[in-house]
Amino acid sequence: MPETTVESVKLKIAFVGAGNVAWHLSQALATAGHQVMAVYSRSALSRTELASALPEAIAVSSSDFTGFAIDLVIISVPDAALAQVAKELKVTPGTVVAHTSGSQPLAILHQIPGARPAVFYPLQTFSKTKAVNLQEVPILLEAEQEDALQLVETLAKSISSKVYKVDSEHRRHLHLAAVFACNFTNHLLGISQKLLQEANLPGELLQPLIHETVAKAMQQHPFKIQTGPAIRHDENVIQAHLQMLQQHPRLQELYQKLTESIQTTKV
Amino acid sequence: MPETTVESVKLKIAFVGAGNVAWHLSQALATAGHQVMAVYSRSALSRTELASALPEAIAVSSSDFTGFAIDLVIISVPDAALAQVAKELKVTPGTVVAHTSGSQPLAILHQIPGARPAVFYPLQTFSKTKAVNLQEVPILLEAEQEDALQLVETLAKSISSKVYKVDSEHRRHLHLAAVFACNFTNHLLGISQKLLQEANLPGELLQPLIHETVAKAMQQHPFKIQTGPAIRHDENVIQAHLQMLQQHPRLQELYQKLTESIQTTKV
Repeated sequence: MPETTVESVKLKIAFVGAGNVAWHLSQALATAGHQVMAVYSRSALSRTELASALPEAIAVSSSDFTGFAIDLVIISVPDAALAQVAKELKVTPGTVVAHTSGSQPLAILHQIPGARPAVFYPLQTFSKTKAVNLQEVPILLEAEQEDALQLVETLAKSISSKVYKVDSEHRRHLHLAAVFACNFTNHLLGISQKLLQEANLPGELLQPLIHETVAKAMQQHPFKIQTGPAIRHDENVIQAHLQMLQQHPRLQELYQKLTESIQTTKV
Repeated sequence: MPETTVESVKLKIAFVGAGNVAWHLSQALATAGHQVMAVYSRSALSRTELASALPEAIAVSSSDFTGFAIDLVIISVPDAALAQVAKELKVTPGTVVAHTSGSQPLAILHQIPGARPAVFYPLQTFSKTKAVNLQEVPILLEAEQEDALQLVETLAKSISSKVYKVDSEHRRHLHLAAVFACNFTNHLLGISQKLLQEANLPGELLQPLIHETVAKAMQQHPFKIQTGPAIRHDENVIQAHLQMLQQHPRLQELYQKLTESIQTTKV
């Protein structure tokens, strides 16, 4: 008889939410052999679309899962909607309920009667149009009960090689760091594209520079390899740049704040 | 007899400056078969180190190159020093003199008697400790005279496959865009590392997220794929993050400015 390994455990899952995270996560889990059985989302179109993309899922019009034989519910909704969604959710007592939020505590799930709360946070940025290889995506887990933790760990290890246990307090710090590294960085890249467009310059000109910047920042602490007019205190260039941004007072202010921040950072 | 192709022209070059750009550029040019014959830098140590790293170069203690049989001088010094360096430079009339600055105009070289001014701007961030493949690095050229342009073009094409002609006005806009895409982005990555360290979290946790953020920003306009609490106007998360940054008033301010900038950006 073959041994039962952790990896071979197949779980029955319901999803609440049909956004980008739910989209990628549910399909990765189905591909790994788990059964995604039901998808609920407030939007009938979204839940139907996601359920259609999954081999065994049906779209359901309420988040009452008491009639389903499932091991766990994954709630993947915007952070601001999580408390309300948790309030409305109904599960058979003992069901593990995990949310996928970086910023929200595990405790937000305490209000779900009978649920064993957990967190299943994939540390990645998802968009529907771009496939992501989850194998390399860190998945951050948290649970209060050991068996709930084991269950989400089984699930996480079936789709990723980078699984970490991180409590709510550490996770919210990580999420803040991710906002700087991802959301704010993306915005700066957008500003640079906008400035290129305004000068009728091709957007791809900066790509090698951006790749090298990021590659270097992974090898050494970015503060130690800072370059540019700010760190050199090159006032002539800084003033010329502020002058060029005259038509964009907000960008001017942002340029100034970032320059000050670079100049006052202690390495 | 073999045909003389543009690529086979070998040039005799002197460098003024021995910083990171001079270091990488001079070695790439030597590897491509050009003769880097002399290196001048105010620092005796720097010029000697760089000259030693080049097969045919000597370190010289003044920037008077009138005694040298050279085709061109490349000035690669900090932007703020460029005017003064140009003032002191002496060349045999007709020598091409090119600077490597993104922010400075070609005209800053007009003060050099007899020089044919040019710009040779490699759009990359260099540090001495990390090798860069210049083949993929855009090199931006400018010159007033056609033969000077041809000379720097020959040089550029011998080390890079991405050679562009860009005038001073466009180049300074490009440089401003590069400050946002490279210098400011590096600073944000540094902040995220600092926040991870403060929370005792491993720095590599964010690497897949950063790679994916940049990969996506190259495929679509970053403004169109912005994610995070700012674009979702998720006030609870934003306020929680500002609260977490209470010990870092400058970061708090930067977080606020970046959030405002994301929220007021017209896509």
